[in-house]
Amino acid sequence: MNDKVMKGLGVLVVGAAIWFIPVPIGLKPVAWKLFAIFVATILGFILQPLPIGSIAFISITFTALAGVLKPAEALSGFSNGTIWLIVSAFLFAKGFIKTGLGRRIAYMLIKKMGDSTLKLGYTIVLSDLIISPATPSNAARAGGIIFPIVRSLASAFDSEPGPSARRVGSFLMQVGYQGNTITSAMFMTSMAGNPLIALLALQALNINITWGQWALAALAPGLLSLLVIPYFLYKVYPPELKETPEAKVLATKELETMGAMSIGEKIVAGIFVGALVLWSTSQYTKLDATVVAMLAVSVMMIARVLEWKDVLEEKGAWDTLIWMGALVGLADYLSKLGFIPWFSKVVSASIVGIPWLQAFMVLLVIYMYAHYGFASLTAHITAMYSAFVTVAAAAGAPVYLAALALAFMSNLCMSLTHYAAAPAPIYFGAGYISQGTWWKLGFWISVINMIIWVGLGSLWWKVLGLW
Amino acid sequence: MNDKVMKGLGVLVVGAAIWFIPVPIGLKPVAWKLFAIFVATILGFILQPLPIGSIAFISITFTALAGVLKPAEALSGFSNGTIWLIVSAFLFAKGFIKTGLGRRIAYMLIKKMGDSTLKLGYTIVLSDLIISPATPSNAARAGGIIFPIVRSLASAFDSEPGPSARRVGSFLMQVGYQGNTITSAMFMTSMAGNPLIALLALQALNINITWGQWALAALAPGLLSLLVIPYFLYKVYPPELKETPEAKVLATKELETMGAMSIGEKIVAGIFVGALVLWSTSQYTKLDATVVAMLAVSVMMIARVLEWKDVLEEKGAWDTLIWMGALVGLADYLSKLGFIPWFSKVVSASIVGIPWLQAFMVLLVIYMYAHYGFASLTAHITAMYSAFVTVAAAAGAPVYLAALALAFMSNLCMSLTHYAAAPAPIYFGAGYISQGTWWKLGFWISVINMIIWVGLGSLWWKVLGLW
Repeated sequence: MNDKVMKGLGVLVVGAAIWFIPVPIGLKPVAWKLFAIFVATILGFILQPLPIGSIAFISITFTALAGVLKPAEALSGFSNGTIWLIVSAFLFAKGFIKTGLGRRIAYMLIKKMGDSTLKLGYTIVLSDLIISPATPSNAARAGGIIFPIVRSLASAFDSEPGPSARRVGSFLMQVGYQGNTITSAMFMTSMAGNPLIALLALQALNINITWGQWALAALAPGLLSLLVIPYFLYKVYPPELKETPEAKVLATKELETMGAMSIGEKIVAGIFVGALVLWSTSQYTKLDATVVAMLAVSVMMIARVLEWKDVLEEKGAWDTLIWMGALVGLADYLSKLGFIPWFSKVVSASIVGIPWLQAFMVLLVIYMYAHYGFASLTAHITAMYSAFVTVAAAAGAPVYLAALALAFMSNLCMSLTHYAAAPAPIYFGAGYISQGTWWKLGFWISVINMIIWVGLGSLWWKVLGLW
Repeated sequence: MNDKVMKGLGVLVVGAAIWFIPVPIGLKPVAWKLFAIFVATILGFILQPLPIGSIAFISITFTALAGVLKPAEALSGFSNGTIWLIVSAFLFAKGFIKTGLGRRIAYMLIKKMGDSTLKLGYTIVLSDLIISPATPSNAARAGGIIFPIVRSLASAFDSEPGPSARRVGSFLMQVGYQGNTITSAMFMTSMAGNPLIALLALQALNINITWGQWALAALAPGLLSLLVIPYFLYKVYPPELKETPEAKVLATKELETMGAMSIGEKIVAGIFVGALVLWSTSQYTKLDATVVAMLAVSVMMIARVLEWKDVLEEKGAWDTLIWMGALVGLADYLSKLGFIPWFSKVVSASIVGIPWLQAFMVLLVIYMYAHYGFASLTAHITAMYSAFVTVAAAAGAPVYLAALALAFMSNLCMSLTHYAAAPAPIYFGAGYISQGTWWKLGFWISVINMIIWVGLGSLWWKVLGLW
């Protein structure tokens, strides 16, 4: 019997065990059965006896087949606005990469300020920051836009994996990766799982985190992190080569090769700015974030910078639609059928008397370092966010503080390992940084990020009146 | 200004013209605006300034942006069970084709009676007829059973979408679809909406149409249609390859080459039989047709005869999901917001005082061709059947004649468009027949079917003593 079959059986055994346990008092049997399916699904996402899309599909099929949910209820996640925000954002990013606009922005920044290795590091981080609100796939941002530039920069300075790695390559790779970690946390649309967080917070705590609120709350700690982390790396993991006047030459050459901005790039740039304006003003215009993203994609299709065949070939969008849509449907009914309220009540009862601040700190640390066990930010969010935010609120933590701090931790935990999320294997796979070094640097950066985001961040959110 | 831009402007002008016309009395402004969007969308599907997927996407984006529907309402079609039956049917067919089972069945048919293309057409129609009383989902019958065989047959004769489409593929696809249209009308259990018709007739006219009555009334016109339509298509839309005497030899050789059935084929065959049993017993098990289709796909994924990457690469499924999901959502709200009931009332009011035969003929024609505005037979029935059957009876038409003729029209209108009902996008999506050809053939077949079913049918029903 092979490994996959063992894992599959493990998932089934756990699901069946929960299914057949006597239903706890105060809970409807159907809610408990749905919980069993939910746990088995999450376990399936972690162990992956089959790809997560298959598991999600099988999961909702079983849910409908067993009569736990009606077919229409089991399928309800597929018309969820958040899911279509993500699908649209995948398509948006495709236009960004396809036209070359992302690469151009990076090279322009390097040409302007790339004359030292530290400055180059900041340039990389800044490029990532600029495009991050429009690229919810941080893997697309890393793999499609920033990483290729970092890789070619390293080569331009004769820094290759091996003896010359530490010349500039190792430093730039780590800055590129850790910068991506930070920018992922900064916008609701800069990481695929972030809109899910907003939805889960709404389901669990009945609070509505808007695009603008998220961006504003992340602004101060985010910018501080983006300043501190590259400098920290520059000090503890320094490049051998500090001055890099050649980078400007390289960027100038690349920009010459690219020629003038194409019509397509100009259109995408215009759509990008327009979408940012509409997203950040949504509390006044009342325009739904999903509708804005769909509008951006619509304009790209009308302008033909995005062809319909590009849409159909964007497998990431369909993969996410299925597994996330299925999961959102299940999670939604977990709440509607009374499981989440019951769970909150049970937990609240059990932590009465513990001061909320201590409880919350413990929760944050557990949540962050639990990511050593995950290979996907979204899987981590899916498995733990709802429960942790519910418990934090039940312990007495202010709801926005709890929701936001956990939201940011959901991204910042990406610093830890070389398999933490999709961008990790891209940067790690280049071969400039050993696993031991990655984990060591990642751990210290996680500590710095916690201090900046939770310690200083909480003061900023107090100023903003969020708690 | 190029052709596509002109067409796009044409769509916008027509949509805007309807949008800004004063709203007819008795109709909410929002229903009229949605009608304007719907007409523009359908016109966009016809003129195709952009691929229909893009148009559908833009259409629901605009609907939400203009506040005609809430975002969740505009996206509602994406969790529609029928849509996921279609998506599942695409995946089911993929397993059918991938394992070679479809090819094997096709070669077995060819070996038996494949010496002319016309005979092959009749074989397809006959297969559909045999299983139709047991498959209330005509989409499951088309997508899960007949379509994969038709698709494999086409491939077996080297007829693929493109230059070789007309070799045999286009003809067989159209025969398969139009055969499904006819068999859908023939039994109370051969189309999901048919039992609803019986219920509505009972409610409106207090007549009880039994399963046997339906089958008997449909027998003569149904068999005649099944004889005439394939021959009609053979004459006006002929396959390039007519005589295929070498096909039997080829089929025998191919079957020998294929050898014994593989494990994969046996699994798919087992799933196929299982799905057939579950579909045909759905009135007892109460299992939803969509859930059965999803179960079949789930089992295929677990058994690894269908890999997740196959699913993600099945572009036809995603294309259909987008355009049909968008359209079904719009059509659903066209009814919910009161447009369809208003339309029925206006029509009813305009025929008061006209002799029943004329009035009835006008009603039948309107009822049939109103289906240009529907993407679901059941939606059409729900929206219009009660009103029309009531008006017909009120005008003096014999009740059984009125009830049965409208019942059959409720299915035969499926011939018209490539979005008429769930089987349509399955056959259309295969890419063998252009939209223009589909509509032209569909219109003529609707006329032939009306003559056979209403003209000759009414004589048959007279013989049966139904009026």
